[in-house]
Amino acid sequence: MVNNRVNRKLRMGMVGGGQGAFIGEVHRIAAQLDNQIELVCGAFSSDAAKSKESGRSLFLPENRVYGSFQEMIERERELPEGERMDFVSIVTPNHVHFGPAMLALESGFHVVLDKPMTFDLAEAKQLKQKVDETGLLFLLTHTYVGYPMVRQARQLVRDGALGKIRKIYVEYPQGWLSREQDNSNKQASWRTDPSKSGKAGCMGDIGTHALHLAEFISGLQTTQLCASLYTYVEGRKLDDDGNVLLQFDNGASGVLIASQVAAGEENALKIRVYGENGGLEWHQQEPNTLQVRWLDKPTQIYRANGAGLSAEAASLCRTPAGHPEGYLEAFANLYKLFANALRAKLSGEEDTGYDFPSVDDGVRGMAFLDNVVNSSESNEKWTPFTV
Amino acid sequence: MVNNRVNRKLRMGMVGGGQGAFIGEVHRIAAQLDNQIELVCGAFSSDAAKSKESGRSLFLPENRVYGSFQEMIERERELPEGERMDFVSIVTPNHVHFGPAMLALESGFHVVLDKPMTFDLAEAKQLKQKVDETGLLFLLTHTYVGYPMVRQARQLVRDGALGKIRKIYVEYPQGWLSREQDNSNKQASWRTDPSKSGKAGCMGDIGTHALHLAEFISGLQTTQLCASLYTYVEGRKLDDDGNVLLQFDNGASGVLIASQVAAGEENALKIRVYGENGGLEWHQQEPNTLQVRWLDKPTQIYRANGAGLSAEAASLCRTPAGHPEGYLEAFANLYKLFANALRAKLSGEEDTGYDFPSVDDGVRGMAFLDNVVNSSESNEKWTPFTV
Amino acid sequence: MVNNRVNRKLRMGMVGGGQGAFIGEVHRIAAQLDNQIELVCGAFSSDAAKSKESGRSLFLPENRVYGSFQEMIERERELPEGERMDFVSIVTPNHVHFGPAMLALESGFHVVLDKPMTFDLAEAKQLKQKVDETGLLFLLTHTYVGYPMVRQARQLVRDGALGKIRKIYVEYPQGWLSREQDNSNKQASWRTDPSKSGKAGCMGDIGTHALHLAEFISGLQTTQLCASLYTYVEGRKLDDDGNVLLQFDNGASGVLIASQVAAGEENALKIRVYGENGGLEWHQQEPNTLQVRWLDKPTQIYRANGAGLSAEAASLCRTPAGHPEGYLEAFANLYKLFANALRAKLSGEEDTGYDFPSVDDGVRGMAFLDNVVNSSESNEKWTPFTV
Amino acid sequence: MVNNRVNRKLRMGMVGGGQGAFIGEVHRIAAQLDNQIELVCGAFSSDAAKSKESGRSLFLPENRVYGSFQEMIERERELPEGERMDFVSIVTPNHVHFGPAMLALESGFHVVLDKPMTFDLAEAKQLKQKVDETGLLFLLTHTYVGYPMVRQARQLVRDGALGKIRKIYVEYPQGWLSREQDNSNKQASWRTDPSKSGKAGCMGDIGTHALHLAEFISGLQTTQLCASLYTYVEGRKLDDDGNVLLQFDNGASGVLIASQVAAGEENALKIRVYGENGGLEWHQQEPNTLQVRWLDKPTQIYRANGAGLSAEAASLCRTPAGHPEGYLEAFANLYKLFANALRAKLSGEEDTGYDFPSVDDGVRGMAFLDNVVNSSESNEKWTPFTV
Repeated sequence: MVNNRVNRKLRMGMVGGGQGAFIGEVHRIAAQLDNQIELVCGAFSSDAAKSKESGRSLFLPENRVYGSFQEMIERERELPEGERMDFVSIVTPNHVHFGPAMLALESGFHVVLDKPMTFDLAEAKQLKQKVDETGLLFLLTHTYVGYPMVRQARQLVRDGALGKIRKIYVEYPQGWLSREQDNSNKQASWRTDPSKSGKAGCMGDIGTHALHLAEFISGLQTTQLCASLYTYVEGRKLDDDGNVLLQFDNGASGVLIASQVAAGEENALKIRVYGENGGLEWHQQEPNTLQVRWLDKPTQIYRANGAGLSAEAASLCRTPAGHPEGYLEAFANLYKLFANALRAKLSGEEDTGYDFPSVDDGVRGMAFLDNVVNSSESNEKWTPFTV
Repeated sequence: MVNNRVNRKLRMGMVGGGQGAFIGEVHRIAAQLDNQIELVCGAFSSDAAKSKESGRSLFLPENRVYGSFQEMIERERELPEGERMDFVSIVTPNHVHFGPAMLALESGFHVVLDKPMTFDLAEAKQLKQKVDETGLLFLLTHTYVGYPMVRQARQLVRDGALGKIRKIYVEYPQGWLSREQDNSNKQASWRTDPSKSGKAGCMGDIGTHALHLAEFISGLQTTQLCASLYTYVEGRKLDDDGNVLLQFDNGASGVLIASQVAAGEENALKIRVYGENGGLEWHQQEPNTLQVRWLDKPTQIYRANGAGLSAEAASLCRTPAGHPEGYLEAFANLYKLFANALRAKLSGEEDTGYDFPSVDDGVRGMAFLDNVVNSSESNEKWTPFTV
Repeated sequence: MVNNRVNRKLRMGMVGGGQGAFIGEVHRIAAQLDNQIELVCGAFSSDAAKSKESGRSLFLPENRVYGSFQEMIERERELPEGERMDFVSIVTPNHVHFGPAMLALESGFHVVLDKPMTFDLAEAKQLKQKVDETGLLFLLTHTYVGYPMVRQARQLVRDGALGKIRKIYVEYPQGWLSREQDNSNKQASWRTDPSKSGKAGCMGDIGTHALHLAEFISGLQTTQLCASLYTYVEGRKLDDDGNVLLQFDNGASGVLIASQVAAGEENALKIRVYGENGGLEWHQQEPNTLQVRWLDKPTQIYRANGAGLSAEAASLCRTPAGHPEGYLEAFANLYKLFANALRAKLSGEEDTGYDFPSVDDGVRGMAFLDNVVNSSESNEKWTPFTV
Repeated sequence: MVNNRVNRKLRMGMVGGGQGAFIGEVHRIAAQLDNQIELVCGAFSSDAAKSKESGRSLFLPENRVYGSFQEMIERERELPEGERMDFVSIVTPNHVHFGPAMLALESGFHVVLDKPMTFDLAEAKQLKQKVDETGLLFLLTHTYVGYPMVRQARQLVRDGALGKIRKIYVEYPQGWLSREQDNSNKQASWRTDPSKSGKAGCMGDIGTHALHLAEFISGLQTTQLCASLYTYVEGRKLDDDGNVLLQFDNGASGVLIASQVAAGEENALKIRVYGENGGLEWHQQEPNTLQVRWLDKPTQIYRANGAGLSAEAASLCRTPAGHPEGYLEAFANLYKLFANALRAKLSGEEDTGYDFPSVDDGVRGMAFLDNVVNSSESNEKWTPFTV
């Protein structure tokens, strides 16, 4: 079997991520970090000249840099199998997720897509249908579940070490949108523009990460929520802050906090999950540490690539304990898992399941935004979590 | 003026706090720590024999150890001025707060009272009326505002350093009630018994501390709240956990979390307050540090008795920076402020205001419990904070 | 037997600690914190007027405030047994340790003495002889071994959990003497004056603490050392900084760092002890936490009054886990152990050993100073640790 | 000028780093992370079959995978300019550093070399001479000075913010060699074998990093030292631990600790530098934070890509503050600086200096090993730092 394995780097095309973008460069570093994937082509901007310039700075051949995602997908489809891209990575603002993703799937390309998955829930459901129809691989880059210690946290819950889960506190305070921005900050601009971001601002950008992390670690699903969204910076059209009470399907309750006006905070995603026997705590800003406090024995600290890790968590570490890995490596772990699945698929191996955020997670995230916005506008305390 | 100052230790009588009690011993240590107050008498238990035994272990003269608070107040009142107690410290379970406090006030004794102030809001209002009538001093021991760094936090907000306040996150997770208790744990027993605690369990015991701390530091008042209380341990009659959304009078919003089933947590009270320019963070378990993160400059760490403290905060430190002070010292700071006020009063000095939790804070705390319980039972999202 | 127990507070007299002193007030708080000891008399200053004024501010009766330690000891000796002090606490600068301690012992009083024990090693040996002769109790206040987590650390070593000890790193950086002081800082003045401090400055004041802590936790004794002392502030006559290599009697090695010119540091005593299986770490500035890192399993964190503590460590905690205790409580623990021993002695109970720093530790500390100064002046690498 | 810039990825050949190696993979990730460098060829093992297999797993063309470094250098030299490698990255054990480095330089290839630079000081000096002669670029991968916060630390010292430097404490405890290893651990095997490592074990592997970091941040040079090296694991032929006192050229003093038997420690490199006004502290395990404690004002915390950073430090951050970067990114920063210098050189731009560890640092590191071993064997306290 092994001798039939596809023995080459996997070929990635990129939509978006031209000069001045933040997340495109992150995707490129992450995708290529483990030497399993190479960027072979891109439509880096809807402005063809800008796309060309980006391509040049990435040392791509001129003929693989396209002026639009349509052009890229069409032309790549016509290339010989040994040359054309295997998958598309889409790193545009939210309102330009659906178009390229659908076209790529329809054209037989696997897809990597940034979150939140689409502009609205309807698009998300259509996309899911297409993924299901085509059987193509789909990765939604909820970066934070790429961290080894998040996997370790999930394992502790799965193993029942904490006992039945009772409480989940997940918070995601950032401060970078604390002031009115001028237009020079491209990142800030589209994220606060409803025509590009969709109906939620802060909740879409980071609240979805928080919800996904909570459900990923706990294995629970939110059943109802009570949200209160705020816009603290004058003139802003979308929420820049919100507090949400959560109810989970096993009877556990929780709180989700997300803010982009928590002045002074960087990217302080943090989660705590408490069961009958103890609680775990993980901070994204010190991601190589997982703290577990027990009711009846001393607190334990698990460390990335340290003693006592699950096989899964250890498999996502590249360096010996004490050589910190961070955000880019967590991101790279998602691409690594995706590459493994893709290589298996291309090699005709049987599908043994994969463990990265999927189109279903994307639908769930978009449903969260609908529910959270509805709840915020409602006088009822609890809004059911409908998908 | 100075030569008229009362030049002796102030005399304290205690109600409650017999053997096996936790908080009585804390009060005794705290009251006497700065050598300004001495315990001269007590009614340590409603069981006269137990009270006597407690008195002996405290090396009190037999004739100053009483079988009931009524006896104590009556007998002390008859002692000559140079001997009788100046004030009563009441450290009984909640349902035995009102009786001794009212009797003490009616008999002319100043009062120190543990929180939550009374069994219910009606008692609280009566007590307030009595305090106002008599003009006697009244200290409610919301311990945590005795910490110097909490005072420093308040100062930073008052000075406007953080700008207009937008967000307050206050949380108080404990884990010690994670399991069903047997009756041997006296502390747990009365706190989970509605006939002794009142209508709220966790919220009464620690939620009130959290609310008080939030309002103390921010200078804001809660205007409405949305609460969800839980009882996770089977058979328990009161809440052992709760999540509360808050709305403040300046437009700020917040979240208050309190739990006694956050297994593995000790006494992890923590507060974060964010304004337009930055945010502050304080943890009770590392109380000598106050972290302030700024939007535009490096994070600062203020330290107890360290550089840059306000005069008020510095005045509440006893040891040089780096010699940690803790819970008992914070508690002692409340007694120190009370003793200063009492000595001034006894010396006939003009009232220059004092700065420790008052009967008004107590009323507010009891109102919080009413509101939070009402909100939890309501389907309406927001419940106005009524007093 | 129990009914013969001395049932009263133990009576303390104090030498030194008048107004403006730092450590005297600490001793008074610590001694009285557990309600087992009361201050009954004092000679607070060699200036009789100042002593009187200090006594008044402590609310002592005029006739128990003395103008000199000689007067105090002589007069107290003549008081009836039911009134006179039981022991003397001596909190003067180093050069006034020996005199009052010897006189107290000769007069039949037990003694509590601040470290470093004497002005020089010769005095220390004489004092030891006197203590041995008289059989009186003697406590040397090496505060830091009063912390519960230091006791827990010792227990882990004793239990062999770490395996054979190989390395000890102990460090004590302070920054408060980073600049030339004017004479207004009384604490700084005598500590940097060889006629009051003795032959070592920084090493005497804090280096002795560090050595004591290392030997206390590890159960090892230093056999040779290699020291390099420095004076960084111009004009200063004693060392304000030093680095010392250590060799222990089981073959372990170590490093001891002490500095009073580590600008920005507060009182950052810290120790790490490594054995074959793991290492422990304790910081005085966060004293309620003891971290133990293992070679083969996740790191553990022991917490004051938390799960898994030894009986001894738990017995030195007053408040539930998460209610931080600090420097004053650690100091109080030494007095508590001393009071237990003294009450037993006064009650005619058999000596069951006691566990607080003794006159032998004091001799060892003074020998350390001799050895470290000799080593620093020597070109030989290693200086044997002679006593 | 710009239009003459070499506009392609720079081409790297690798010596060593075959399957089972640790640092080779780190170099490959680091070199390629910023998309400026690509691996084009390699001699991954002295066993030709293994080299081939490694090449295949890296997806290299067969004809660019060589059986020895000699073959690689010879053959690459003959390739046309547009194809052949630009530089060699040498990631073999210490005893195979000198040969390939000399041959590469003699053949006109720039060199990246792992530390310690050579097997002994004589080789180091020869290598330096060759680098000087040829004018080729040379990077010694002292990884830790690739961290942005280390650059920020250096800047604070350079700016004089701390005042004159007085003390440097640098420590590098690891625990992974705490037990006797079997031969299965390839990393451990060669590092403890004098025929491969040279005359120092722990000091060569990590002590050199510590010294380099101290001198890099402080801008000072060691003038004399007093070392004590130890071998704690029985049968081991090289030091696995050592303590060193340091004296610097401006009068500052310091301590350097390195251990590979500090059981439970991971890779806990840490440095503190104190000047007259304050001190800084940096931990490799939490590399995105730099703490600066001041004598006269609150402590400050600088954060990677956060407010207040120097332009240099900020230029070495890839992600917004709060998105942690780690060891691989620090390593990549060295390659980035090297790539910048190399691209400039290839483009015929004037040499404007570069700022990465050089062959001179390598000579200094090897001299340190000579001096530290000599000192450890000497009875003299101080050994001059000779090069």
